Formats: sequence, C-alpha cells, structure tokens
Amino acid sequence: MFGGHGKILRVNLSEGKVSQEDIPEDLFDKFLTGAGLATHYLFREVPKGAEPLGPENELILMTGALTGTIAPSTGRFNWVFKSPLTGIWAQSNSAGFWGVDFKKTGYDGIIFQGISPKPVYLVIEEDKADLRDASYLWGKSVPETTKLIKEELGEKFNVDCIGIAGENQVRYASIMNDLHRAAGRCGGGAVMGSKLLKAIAVCGTKPVNIANPTAFKEVSKKQFELLDQHMFKVALETFGTNVVIDLVNARGGFPTRNWQTCVFPELEEINAQALSEKVLIEPMGCFACPLRCGRRSEIRQGKYKGASGEGPEFESVGTLGGSCHVTDMEAITMAHYLCNDYGLDTISTGATIGFAIECYEKEILTKSDTDGLELRFGDPDIVIELIHKIAKREGFGDFLAEGTRRMAQKLDKGSERFAMNVKGLELPAYDSRAVQITGLAYAVANRGGDHVTAYIQGPTFLDIPFLCIPDSQIKDSLVADPEEVHILVDLENVMTALDTLGACKFMGFCVASDEWVELVAHCLGHDFTYDDLMRVGERAYNLARVFNVREGVTRADDTLPPRLLEEPLTEGPAAGKVNENLPAMLDKYYELRGWDKATGKPTPEKLKELGLEEYTA
Amino acid sequence: MFGGHGKILRVNLSEGKVSQEDIPEDLFDKFLTGAGLATHYLFREVPKGAEPLGPENELILMTGALTGTIAPSTGRFNWVFKSPLTGIWAQSNSAGFWGVDFKKTGYDGIIFQGISPKPVYLVIEEDKADLRDASYLWGKSVPETTKLIKEELGEKFNVDCIGIAGENQVRYASIMNDLHRAAGRCGGGAVMGSKLLKAIAVCGTKPVNIANPTAFKEVSKKQFELLDQHMFKVALETFGTNVVIDLVNARGGFPTRNWQTCVFPELEEINAQALSEKVLIEPMGCFACPLRCGRRSEIRQGKYKGASGEGPEFESVGTLGGSCHVTDMEAITMAHYLCNDYGLDTISTGATIGFAIECYEKEILTKSDTDGLELRFGDPDIVIELIHKIAKREGFGDFLAEGTRRMAQKLDKGSERFAMNVKGLELPAYDSRAVQITGLAYAVANRGGDHVTAYIQGPTFLDIPFLCIPDSQIKDSLVADPEEVHILVDLENVMTALDTLGACKFMGFCVASDEWVELVAHCLGHDFTYDDLMRVGERAYNLARVFNVREGVTRADDTLPPRLLEEPLTEGPAAGKVNENLPAMLDKYYELRGWDKATGKPTPEKLKELGLEEYTA
Repeated sequence: MFGGHGKILRVNLSEGKVSQEDIPEDLFDKFLTGAGLATHYLFREVPKGAEPLGPENELILMTGALTGTIAPSTGRFNWVFKSPLTGIWAQSNSAGFWGVDFKKTGYDGIIFQGISPKPVYLVIEEDKADLRDASYLWGKSVPETTKLIKEELGEKFNVDCIGIAGENQVRYASIMNDLHRAAGRCGGGAVMGSKLLKAIAVCGTKPVNIANPTAFKEVSKKQFELLDQHMFKVALETFGTNVVIDLVNARGGFPTRNWQTCVFPELEEINAQALSEKVLIEPMGCFACPLRCGRRSEIRQGKYKGASGEGPEFESVGTLGGSCHVTDMEAITMAHYLCNDYGLDTISTGATIGFAIECYEKEILTKSDTDGLELRFGDPDIVIELIHKIAKREGFGDFLAEGTRRMAQKLDKGSERFAMNVKGLELPAYDSRAVQITGLAYAVANRGGDHVTAYIQGPTFLDIPFLCIPDSQIKDSLVADPEEVHILVDLENVMTALDTLGACKFMGFCVASDEWVELVAHCLGHDFTYDDLMRVGERAYNLARVFNVREGVTRADDTLPPRLLEEPLTEGPAAGKVNENLPAMLDKYYELRGWDKATGKPTPEKLKELGLEEYTA
Repeated sequence: MFGGHGKILRVNLSEGKVSQEDIPEDLFDKFLTGAGLATHYLFREVPKGAEPLGPENELILMTGALTGTIAPSTGRFNWVFKSPLTGIWAQSNSAGFWGVDFKKTGYDGIIFQGISPKPVYLVIEEDKADLRDASYLWGKSVPETTKLIKEELGEKFNVDCIGIAGENQVRYASIMNDLHRAAGRCGGGAVMGSKLLKAIAVCGTKPVNIANPTAFKEVSKKQFELLDQHMFKVALETFGTNVVIDLVNARGGFPTRNWQTCVFPELEEINAQALSEKVLIEPMGCFACPLRCGRRSEIRQGKYKGASGEGPEFESVGTLGGSCHVTDMEAITMAHYLCNDYGLDTISTGATIGFAIECYEKEILTKSDTDGLELRFGDPDIVIELIHKIAKREGFGDFLAEGTRRMAQKLDKGSERFAMNVKGLELPAYDSRAVQITGLAYAVANRGGDHVTAYIQGPTFLDIPFLCIPDSQIKDSLVADPEEVHILVDLENVMTALDTLGACKFMGFCVASDEWVELVAHCLGHDFTYDDLMRVGERAYNLARVFNVREGVTRADDTLPPRLLEEPLTEGPAAGKVNENLPAMLDKYYELRGWDKATGKPTPEKLKELGLEEYTA
C-alpha cells in the first residue's frame, strides 16, 4: 500500500490487549486515512448515545496519507472521539514531530477502546506494541511524564501524553506531544484520562511507501523552494501566528472582556512585536515545515522570570489575554505554559475564565462560589490561579472544568446569553460580528464553534485569499451574503482534505490544490484530480455530520450565542453589527451541501453520491 | 476643487517663460489628474512623429488625486512623454517625498515644452515659479546637484533632477528625486537633458483639499491599522522587494546570463537574506507608506567599502546581477548606486550590458568595438566600468547608451533574437516563459516590455492573488489560457487607476478596490463606485494606446523577442517552455479590450464608451 502502511493498532484497554489489523483497501481508497477513516471506525463502533467518558467511547488516532513524507508541512495527525465537552463528533489535530515518529513504527493509526483497570501507557516500536504500567507517571505534568518515559525507554522515544487536567477529566483537557504541542480542542485529554491511558511512546524507522518516489521528491523540492521565502513564511517566521492580532483588532473583531467589546485598547502590550521583544528566543518549525511559525520562548522579567517553553500562539494571547483583558505579556505567556504543562486547551481555558469573570462582575457568581476569590478583568494573577484550580478540579476550579455551556446551564440568570460557545465548544478569538461569514462558519462546523474547520479567517480577517481554492475572496466582511456561502463550503472541503493528507492548513494559504493533487498522485501511483481531493474532503465532512445527526444535532443547533445575534458591537469599524441573516445563510449552506433545509440532515442522494449510503443516522 | 488644486504650470523652455493655467473641470472629472490627464496634453500638444529629443516633445509631470493626502502610500507621481528609447508613449512613476512636496506648492502638474537655450532649473514655491540658470549644476551628479541646490535655496527645498546620463541623453536615463528615488523607465532623463532642464526644486505647505476630511481621515486610519502588521508589510519591511527573488528563481524564471538560462546557480549570494546581511542598514518608507520596502544601505567590505545609499531593489539585483551573472552583492550594490548617481534606469542598464556580453561571447562584438575590454558574464568590474562609460557616452558606452533595440538593429548577425526588449523597452527580471500570461503582459503594455503596468507577477510568480480585483488567481502558470486574459485586463485597469490616484501598486496586494473607492468618494465629495474606478483606469489606458496607434503601433508590435517565442528554457520547473499561444491570447485580449483584432486599434465604439471619441489616431 502506498501513502499508508495499511495497518492500525487496536488497543482494548479493558482487557489490556493489543492487536493489529489491516485497513481494508476500499476504506483506504475512500478516505485516504486521516480523520475520515477514523470517523468511519467511530461511527461503526461507538453506539449512539454513548457516554463520552465511559467505556463505550473510543479514542482514535489517525495519521494522513502524506504524514511523514518529504512533502512540505506534513507532520500532522488527528485524534477523533466523541467529545465530553460537546457530546458530539470531535477531531483534534496536532503537529510537531510525534505523529511522524508514530507513523515510522509501521502503523497508520490506533483505536483505543474500553477503560483500563489501572493507569497504563502504550509503547510502540516497529511492528510491535505493548501496554505498560503507568502508576509512576500518574499525577505527573506533561514535561515530567515526557522526561520519565525518556529516562526509562531512551531518548530516541518520542512521547504523547496527558497532563493532570486529562487525568482529572477536565472537559477541555488536551492531548500533548513533543512537550509543547497540543491536540487542544474538544477534550481528547479527558477521554484519554477516563481510559486511564497516560501516554504513548513511539520509536521506529519505517519510511512511508511512495509509488513514484523520484517524481514525488521533485514536486516536493519545488514546493519547498517556492515556500522558502514566501511572504507568508517571512511573516509567520518573523512574528509567529500572533502576526494576525493587529489585523483582527483593527477590524474591531478581537474579543475583549468575554466579547463585551472587540477592540483591545492596550494591543501594543500583547501584539506580535511585544511578543518578539519580551519572550521570543527563536522561531521553531514542525516536521518538514519551512514556515516555522512556532516560538521558542522564555520569560525574561517579572515574577515568572526564568520560565521557558514554546508559544504563546495567537489563540492563547486571544483568550488568556484578550477575553480576560490581561495586558501583561509575561503573565499571558506563563498562563500558556501552565496550560501546556497541565494539558489544557488554551482557547477553552481562557474563554471559560473570561466567562466566569463576567458572571462575577454581573453578580451571577459571588465570592461564595469562587472560593473567596475576587474575579476581575485585567487581573493576571486570577487567571493563573484559576488555571491551577481548573487542572486540579480544586474547589471553584471543578465547576470551571465543565466549560461554559454546562456552567451557564447550571447558573442560568441569563448567563447563556454570553456563554461564548457553539454546541458547547468555546469560540476562538475572532468576533464573527466583525466578519459576518465567520458566524456561519462557527454555526455549522462539525466540532462546534471552531475557526480552523474552514479557516475562513484567511480571506476575511487577514485579507489573504487562499490559493487552495480558485476564488476565496469575500467582497465585504460586514455583509452576510448568501451568494458567498459557496466559498465557505469549498474551504471546509479543501481544509478537511488537507487534514486528511496530514498537511498543515497554513499550506492552504500558499500552495494551490493542484500541487497537492500532483503530490497525492505520485504518492499513490494513480491518477488523482482536484475533484478527487475535494471529494475526499467532502466525504469526511459529511460523515462527521451524519455522526452528529445520529447524536441528535439538528438545524436548531447550527446557531450562535445570543450575544452575537442580539448585542451589537459598540465600537470599532464593525460598530452596530450583530451576526445578521443567519437563517438565509444556513438555507444556502444546506442547499450547497445537499442537506435537508428543515432538519440539516445530509439527504440520501448526497450520501449515495459520496458512497456513504451505509452510514445511516 | 477637491483632490487636486486645479492648476498646472506651463514652462516654455525655448522662451524661458513660466505661466499657470487651470485644469478644465471636465478634464479633471474624466481623468482625476494622473497619467491620464498628462496623456491628454501629450496627445493634444505633441504632433504625430515628433522627435522625442527635439523641441516638439513635451515632458509632463502630473500628481494623482490622492497624492499628498493622508491615505496610505500616496506619495507617487508620474512623468509622461514620448520616449527616446521606444519612440512611443511613456510613463515613468516615482515615489519618495518629492511629489508630495511639489503638490504642496499649489500645482497638480507641469508641462515642459521646447528646449532651453542654456541649462536651467525650475524653482517652485507656493503659487509661484521661475527658471534659473543651471550652468553651475551642469555636469554634476544627482547627489552633487541636490546638495548644491539645497545649499543655495535652503534645506527646506526638495530636489528632482537628472544626472550626467540625462545630460548626455542616454536613451534610458532616469529622472531622480529624493536623491535615490527614480522615475526610471523609458528615458525621461534624456528628454529632460535634451531640454537642458537640470532640476526642479520645490517648497510649499499647501494641503490637498478634501471634501469630507473627517470621514477621509477615519477610512485612512482604518487602512493604516490594517496595513500596519499585514503579512506583506512584514515581508517587505523585513526583506525589501528582493524578497521575491527566491520565488522567481524557484519557478525557473529568473533571467540569468541575458536570459540564456533562468535559474541562477548562486542565488544565496544575492537573495534577500544576503542583501540584509551584507548591505542593509535599515528599512525606509516613502511618504505615508507603512510598508517600508526601501533599504538604507552601505557597503561594508571589499573595494567599494564605505559607499552608501539606498537599495538595491529586486530589479537592480535582477538585471545588474542576474542578467550579467554577477554574484558579488557588494558590486551589484555599487552598480546600483552608480546608476542612481548618474541617473540611469537600472533595468535597461543591466539588460543592455547583459546583451552586450552575450554579443561579445558570440563574437558579434569584438575588442575593436569594446575599447579593448573583454566582456564576460560574471565579471563585476566590467559591469561597473560599462556603467561609467554609458553615463558619459564614452567610447563603447556611446553605443550601449542607445539600448538593446538600436544596438541589435546596427549589429544585426542574429542579435535581435536575444535583444531582450519589447517595443524597445528592456524587459524586467521575470522570464515570461516560466509564467505564460506574463508574456502577454509584456507584449501589450503601453510603454513596452514592462512588469508594473498590470503587475501580474503578483498572482503568478509570487502566488499572491491581489485584493484589488475580485479574482486574480491564475490556475496554472505554465499554461497560456485565453480564458484567464480577463485577469490581465482587469489588473491593467486597476493598476492604471492606482497610478492615477498617486497610490503605490503594492497597495493593490493588500487593499481591496472598494476601500480605495470609499477614499476617493470622501476626497471628491461625491459618489464614486468600483465601476468608476475601473473606468478611470480603462480610459487612461486606452488613451495611451490611441497615442501609440497614432505613432504607428499595430498588432505586429505586440509581440515578444524571438528568444522567448522560440528558444525553450533548458532547466528548472519550466524547462522546455517557450511563450506559447500568443496569437490566441492576443485575440482574446483585443476582444476584451474592445480593440480591432486585425490592427490592435481601439474601436470607435470603445472610444465613444470611454468618452474618448475626440482623440483620433
């Protein structure tokens, strides 16, 4: 088999058994591995209504067809599971080097099922794998766990693990790899913790089989040469992902004080320039990636002086900084480090703390709820203290560990108006009132309120049309125009396809899909067209929707928090705007998707067209 | 009047008289000043067949409607004349600060006519202007001239002038401003020299009248905020325009050894990284421009150690470096400085020297022609020596000063095959065989073989779709597809419109036309739509074509050098390619332009539609 090894591991944690099985060729051809194939297993093996933190849920790892090849920025891999935060389909994606090291063991993915009777970790070497006792690792942070495993197995092993937050089943705990890299969203770390699975250590040297290695190498080389001094590379390498923050704020779309306003007054304290001056040591790249948007960093002054790690990324600055209105770059960086060490999703963590502060300021929460803490926007110490409490589920932290949707349901008193999540997933740091089509993107994304399912921020907030589809330019960000919905649909499909390949979505900025198609064709050794690529994306996207429909998702769930629909922005270029025209945008979206307008279900015709007729909700 | 002052200066050099006249309002409304209005005067006042270096030719300066306002990157101004290099319509555009300082004197433009009996320079203060004796400036370099004038008139005067190359009527002499900024192309400096006009010194404080100043300021401010950390800004500020060189070379489209190959083997010696390490002091910006792509530089080692100035820009590296295969960054920088000091267009200079070297290597030129010099690719000393000779028209330099077309006509022996010009204008450093549609762009551009008339390099060589038109993405650079010709036409129109406004074409990367339209509307105080903007560009573009048709340009002139049409590239990703399908591309181009397919003339209907029926060729 080309692209993949054609084999996955199945780990029955309840029974402590590890086995391997072949990926049926027809499934490989249909999904090209990636999240699509993982969703196939999730749909088939996890029964409707399964408790996400119970034994019936599965945690599925899947690399992409190009993961670990020499094509640019192909170090990514996916986790797929039913989310304890949203109760629906979840995918969480990470890069760094671990996914490549895993694929080198000779497997394309792993299905974890059941619950282990005691803490364990999985060790995988070439063509073999076994579970080991992890009692000595339980209670340890991500860096400690990584260090202890490397001490035991050797430096050549690379480690993916959960921290304390995952052990404590914080509903938005992340799964960490390469020390600082996170599969952050949707609470995969909690699922891993519920299964008493602490870590996965891998070591191998098996290369990916490529059908036409010479041609593949040639096309990859050409892409690297093009990317090497691409303008995006220069921008991202110089300033990291936080390069976007000024643009987002200038559009009046940078959520501040839990989205009460979207203009951050002290932006120059936390923008990319500030990050570079205050904490950056040097840029870092993931496997085979010339962009090097990662930041190796250290805190050089103040009370956290001496701490070091990677980041912060834009979304960490956006939520731990923006939503909590923290202007102290060192404190934001420390908060980000702590999230990484505990294994917490920075977006949900910052958003949840921001929500709690607004509840406190509105007296929906009082000191009797908060362990006596006074919660105020702009207080870096409170953010740091709450992160400790959340990860440990200690006192008030136990409540915060449930995420904004559950908190609001419990608190009531109108707090749902400003619980900034969609389908339970906390929103990222782009206010959709300032760029209307992003509201639709949040409303429909399969994993809940998400910005990278389509990455429509690129051609809107960032004013960068994407090369991966022929026309991604949005005419006027302030207008919700149904005629432009096709751009969202195309981007969802192509971004899902990039995920499937194991490629970074940033490649969608700079590399045309035609060039990916060429790589895939050389990899697989048969024709592979642009339409094939889009179809692979569309198929995986629809299968996730079918999973969600089976779990009860309907059109009514494809909506936005009341704040976005009813409270106009009060300042900035988008002042006066709410998210408008959502029903008409949804109508158009369902029409283009081939989904039923009343229910939001993929029609039998659409499923048949995609070869998905056997997956019935 | 809003946008302009409504007044121009008319300088009759033969009679030594300076007068002022109003711009008729209907002309202002039609052209919004800029090159379009200048072309109107050129068409009306310069008779068909006029000798470019004779008294009948005019040299017309015109600012744009937004030049000198607070809108971003609006420091540009235009020179329009009949070119001594090409014999047809010429426009040459520069930025820096001088154009703004000129507009502050209360005039929108100047028409220079006739020939002065002795060297003069023009001094303009608010609402007044007079000619002064320039005998003491004649024979002086650009920096010397600038220094002497400032010593005489005071530091508050800003100077635009020619150097020795212009005095000697080198056919590709530039007009220089702000010491290092060039209106480089088409030989405006030779026209100025032929008129014995050495310089223009300006000083004033008159602001541009804006109809709705508050709204104008608000929109400008928003644009600045958006631009301030735009990815393009980061890339251009960090690395200057030379940031593109790796991309162009990676596509196999970087002309090397006079376009004998288009892959430069030692690129890392001369790329943006090398430039930064070896000669950069700091980035510099033009008036009101946040991008700061300019380079303040100095030579820090080798035989030119201690020389300093601005640049080199990508095109200087491309022609003085690439075409001559010089790998010595310090020598390229010195050659660039010398061109600026003498007032020579770096593109035509480098291209002409490269052409001469190939002629020598092919024994079409021998030592008896070259003053005994041995011309070899890769010899930095020869390039430097020939620049001195060209500017002084000394010996062999007198022949080189005529440009590649005249040289090839005289040399014959097949040298026209590789005289790399279109309509006499030497081509810039992008090989159109590697990106097919750029071949059409070169073939049709009104001023001859030019890259900035449409700037179609953006969405092709640089993989950056432009925001200024709705869809500028070219699907496959290696295919000459008539279905994509509309993108070229749209870009020509919008780029001409940006010129008209006095805005930098780089703004076309990052700012949507809708936003320019808003600025223009606030500036003028009446509605101004996207269609109006495109129409202004289309009108000016067609008027220039009508001028050229009157001078005898036909479809047969809209072509490319034989090397591009017949000699395939031998290496790189575009190996095997020549410029293909040009007749079909031209057919489509004429059809979209509303020009007659057989003759290339704008049809009477098209001229009527644009309100240009009175300009008959």
